Amino acid sequence: MAKILRVDMSSGTCSYSDVPEIYKGLGGRGLTSAIVAREVDPLVNPLGPRNKLVFAPGLLGGTACANSGRLSVGGKSPLTSGIKESNSGGQPGGHLAGLGVLALVIENSGPKGEWLQLEISREGAVLMPCRVGGLNNYEAVARLTEESGPGSSYITIGRAGEFRLAAASIAMTDLDGQPARHAARGGLGAVMGSKGLKAIIIKPGTKKNRLTLANPEAFNSASKRFTKALLDHPVCGRSLSEYGSAAMMGLFNEAGALPTRNFSSGRFDSPETLSGERLNQLTKERGGQGRVARGCMTGCVMRCSGVFPDRLGQRIGKWPDYETMWAFGPNTDITDLDSVAQYDRLCDDTGVDTIDVGAAVAVLMEAGVLEFGDAAGALEAVAQISQGTPLGRILGSGVAVTGKVYGAVRVAEVKGQALPAFDPRSVKGQGVTFATNPQGADHTAGFSYAANILALGGDVDPLSPEGQAELSRRTQISAAAVDTLGLCMFVSFAFFETPEAIEAVVDMLNARYGWSMKRADLDGLGQRVLATEVDFNQRAGLTSASDRLPEFFRQEEVGPHRSTFDVTDSDLDRVLEFGE
Amino acid sequence: MAKILRVDMSSGTCSYSDVPEIYKGLGGRGLTSAIVAREVDPLVNPLGPRNKLVFAPGLLGGTACANSGRLSVGGKSPLTSGIKESNSGGQPGGHLAGLGVLALVIENSGPKGEWLQLEISREGAVLMPCRVGGLNNYEAVARLTEESGPGSSYITIGRAGEFRLAAASIAMTDLDGQPARHAARGGLGAVMGSKGLKAIIIKPGTKKNRLTLANPEAFNSASKRFTKALLDHPVCGRSLSEYGSAAMMGLFNEAGALPTRNFSSGRFDSPETLSGERLNQLTKERGGQGRVARGCMTGCVMRCSGVFPDRLGQRIGKWPDYETMWAFGPNTDITDLDSVAQYDRLCDDTGVDTIDVGAAVAVLMEAGVLEFGDAAGALEAVAQISQGTPLGRILGSGVAVTGKVYGAVRVAEVKGQALPAFDPRSVKGQGVTFATNPQGADHTAGFSYAANILALGGDVDPLSPEGQAELSRRTQISAAAVDTLGLCMFVSFAFFETPEAIEAVVDMLNARYGWSMKRADLDGLGQRVLATEVDFNQRAGLTSASDRLPEFFRQEEVGPHRSTFDVTDSDLDRVLEFGE
Repeated sequence: MAKILRVDMSSGTCSYSDVPEIYKGLGGRGLTSAIVAREVDPLVNPLGPRNKLVFAPGLLGGTACANSGRLSVGGKSPLTSGIKESNSGGQPGGHLAGLGVLALVIENSGPKGEWLQLEISREGAVLMPCRVGGLNNYEAVARLTEESGPGSSYITIGRAGEFRLAAASIAMTDLDGQPARHAARGGLGAVMGSKGLKAIIIKPGTKKNRLTLANPEAFNSASKRFTKALLDHPVCGRSLSEYGSAAMMGLFNEAGALPTRNFSSGRFDSPETLSGERLNQLTKERGGQGRVARGCMTGCVMRCSGVFPDRLGQRIGKWPDYETMWAFGPNTDITDLDSVAQYDRLCDDTGVDTIDVGAAVAVLMEAGVLEFGDAAGALEAVAQISQGTPLGRILGSGVAVTGKVYGAVRVAEVKGQALPAFDPRSVKGQGVTFATNPQGADHTAGFSYAANILALGGDVDPLSPEGQAELSRRTQISAAAVDTLGLCMFVSFAFFETPEAIEAVVDMLNARYGWSMKRADLDGLGQRVLATEVDFNQRAGLTSASDRLPEFFRQEEVGPHRSTFDVTDSDLDRVLEFGE
Repeated sequence: MAKILRVDMSSGTCSYSDVPEIYKGLGGRGLTSAIVAREVDPLVNPLGPRNKLVFAPGLLGGTACANSGRLSVGGKSPLTSGIKESNSGGQPGGHLAGLGVLALVIENSGPKGEWLQLEISREGAVLMPCRVGGLNNYEAVARLTEESGPGSSYITIGRAGEFRLAAASIAMTDLDGQPARHAARGGLGAVMGSKGLKAIIIKPGTKKNRLTLANPEAFNSASKRFTKALLDHPVCGRSLSEYGSAAMMGLFNEAGALPTRNFSSGRFDSPETLSGERLNQLTKERGGQGRVARGCMTGCVMRCSGVFPDRLGQRIGKWPDYETMWAFGPNTDITDLDSVAQYDRLCDDTGVDTIDVGAAVAVLMEAGVLEFGDAAGALEAVAQISQGTPLGRILGSGVAVTGKVYGAVRVAEVKGQALPAFDPRSVKGQGVTFATNPQGADHTAGFSYAANILALGGDVDPLSPEGQAELSRRTQISAAAVDTLGLCMFVSFAFFETPEAIEAVVDMLNARYGWSMKRADLDGLGQRVLATEVDFNQRAGLTSASDRLPEFFRQEEVGPHRSTFDVTDSDLDRVLEFGE
């Protein structure tokens, strides 16, 4: 029977408890948000001892279901001051689920000036002094791996998290044992830092340690159908593995929706320099440690996470994701893929969100501190985060703080969190999601762009204000459900088009837990999660005024469509109104 | 007949118009808040062209009434994101009123990268290129004075305002022609900077240019009674001129309410080093340009603003006010009065709020970037504001941003604005005002400490949670009325104790405008102003969650009384509830 593991950083005690009724039937984001909403006073200081940091595998975590190993992390966000869930691939999610940990709840704060690490294994959990304080993620994980031997997975923070910077991420090790997957958004790394927790080491135990399934045969059958549905889908089964998530660069540029030079244009002049195709091509040409079609976690069949090699074939880091390539590419007018890969590596190492920090760099450029396109200058500035210089701390605090410090007006953020790689004036369904999602502007909060641009799961004119509220509501509900199951967000593409994919997932849930859930219940689940989050935010003092895009999106036209964001406020206000 | 002068920074036009009915009967804070609430969308970016910057002399401005020359400045605040009124002594308020300008409204933004100046005289108003861009206040005013000749007064921003930093102030020249009086709180200097307006030059015209009074004889009689009431009062008539506002240092230290080392104690170890008595003594000993008992504006009879000389007798700046001496004294553990005076001069020159920047320095010290008590290091850091370094920009953005950038938890601010020199745990009425006032934590928002500590205008136990809500409500209403009249806040001490002082003021209003106002109507006026401000803030997205002190004031006891802030939330929520 899965348990909740509570770790009191102040007393040093770790205790397992049964799952109370109120949290039953939840996992992943649904569970982190439920725990945060119920146990954290919405008015606490996010960096104070009364905040909690919650880790939860999804409902399908630890099973043979494809792409089910995401790990949700939740807490009150120091970036948005609202509720936050940020999830990550890598191995820890599956490992924790395999160990029967439904949720790991970090409470209170450890002794000042000391770093602790938490070791979780089949024998239980123990908190102990940590010797890798002061190190960034790559070196910290290398040392921990030396100590613990192979087979474990690691959750760590870099120096940004130690500094409690508002854009600090939490790193999780991938299939290769590298800290390249991150719960990056919303500054949860700063919350982990504020607790004095530097690292979590998870020793997964043996293969035998399989979860009990209510109906193993039904599960296996459904699992196979799900895998097939993914593999048969052109995006999930082919383009992601060939080109990574960066496959989207060309599509969005073509659509005039690729924010360029700090959201001053929707089209990038040098599309050939940065793309999924170029990632693939360079990786193959350079060879060495480079790899195409690598998953980030056990059971991944979409395999978007390649390994990008330098000119000598040495691994720089994972394939930069679409949002990273955008942030350190078009939006900063940088055109060099190697610089993007170095940026990604640097952010993964320091432990910061590539989106918020990249957006902050773009604001610095618009403020004249750096030139647009100056990759070397930008990399030097980002490297300062780890050094703790004033400039580094500004950047590591994300775009909203950077904008404030530089007196900037054109700052693309909602609820303090940077807008990702979609111009809301040219993909208006996405704009509605950025405005209204309780997580702030978030790239995984709902793929309205699928229906706006890719004609997946509907076909809604991206430039019209009509129909976007409904589209956004639908995709936000879907995303909340996917995050609760622990599935990789990219399964959504199959969900939008292949009813069998969703049915297979429902069948797996029923076979796992002995439920009799129906397909519509999944939407109910997603809606319940969003309602919990919206309610927390309201108690934290956020109002509909927080559900608005920055003024310039309504005032400034963006090329090539000369469009502004013109979805009405009343449309925005009803997106997440669920009534009773 | 007084007019509203509107200046369109974008087109360069200046136009005078009659006062619409809706604004009649208002002046000072009442008028700036009414104009901002009516004409500014609460959701605009405070640094964007749709914000407005409003200057308004008070209802008694330009008359012979003692201490009536304050000038209110209003707008949406880049510091609090709510409505802001900040008023200043100096000559511009009286001059503008004398020229028949009821309100000056700066609209839109000027051409990018250019600085403009506005000249207002009896001949009208004209916008022209400004040659003092890039200079700080002292040098800017010296050059403008050379150009315009003596007799004019000046409103300027320093480099902090040019940089649009959120703690930037607006400087006003005093009786000596020095830019030593500031509308300092809430970052209105950044709003002026965002408009491209570097300076306002006011040529007051001749003595003949007196305002028409409905009943000159009644006015003169009431004016004399008011002056007498002030001069007869021990605080207004004696201690302020002898010791400046710093007279309060000893009293609050004695009461255990003087925040020390970033609000970690309520009592300062070296009270003898920093006090009004020492200001007086050193000023007299050093002689030279030093002066005791100097007013900051024509008609001041309380004369709290001395001139502080260095060891050679050269003017450093005005006498540091109580809050400045606290911010760069006990709260940073600095014990050297000359350093405080240099800090005050530096802030006046750069154009930043001494309270918010001083609070930011204390947070830097707690974060270990500087040592507590390191006056030289702190002065160097503050000097960086004018240089535009990353650290300088952080400090110039105020305590909330500084706290965020340094991952600090103990950050004493409400609505983004730094708490001034009163520990809310030991002067709880003051704490209620800091929590609930629509301006954020503000030292002039209502003198609850008078009844809490000085037994003026009541006697409410400062350590009990009882009765503080009522006390705060009363003093906030009184302060809003005083700010609307254009009176110096220090007249409040006389108001609390001397009914004749209030009656004289009501008589002056009636004699000035031909009204038949009663004493109770003054409260109605204050209440109306607050209601307007609360309503704006609600539309801007602020809720009761913004009307709370930082968590640590409830969690951490402060010595010597071992008290926490324990006024209930429901008490806080009803302070400014005005029903209809």
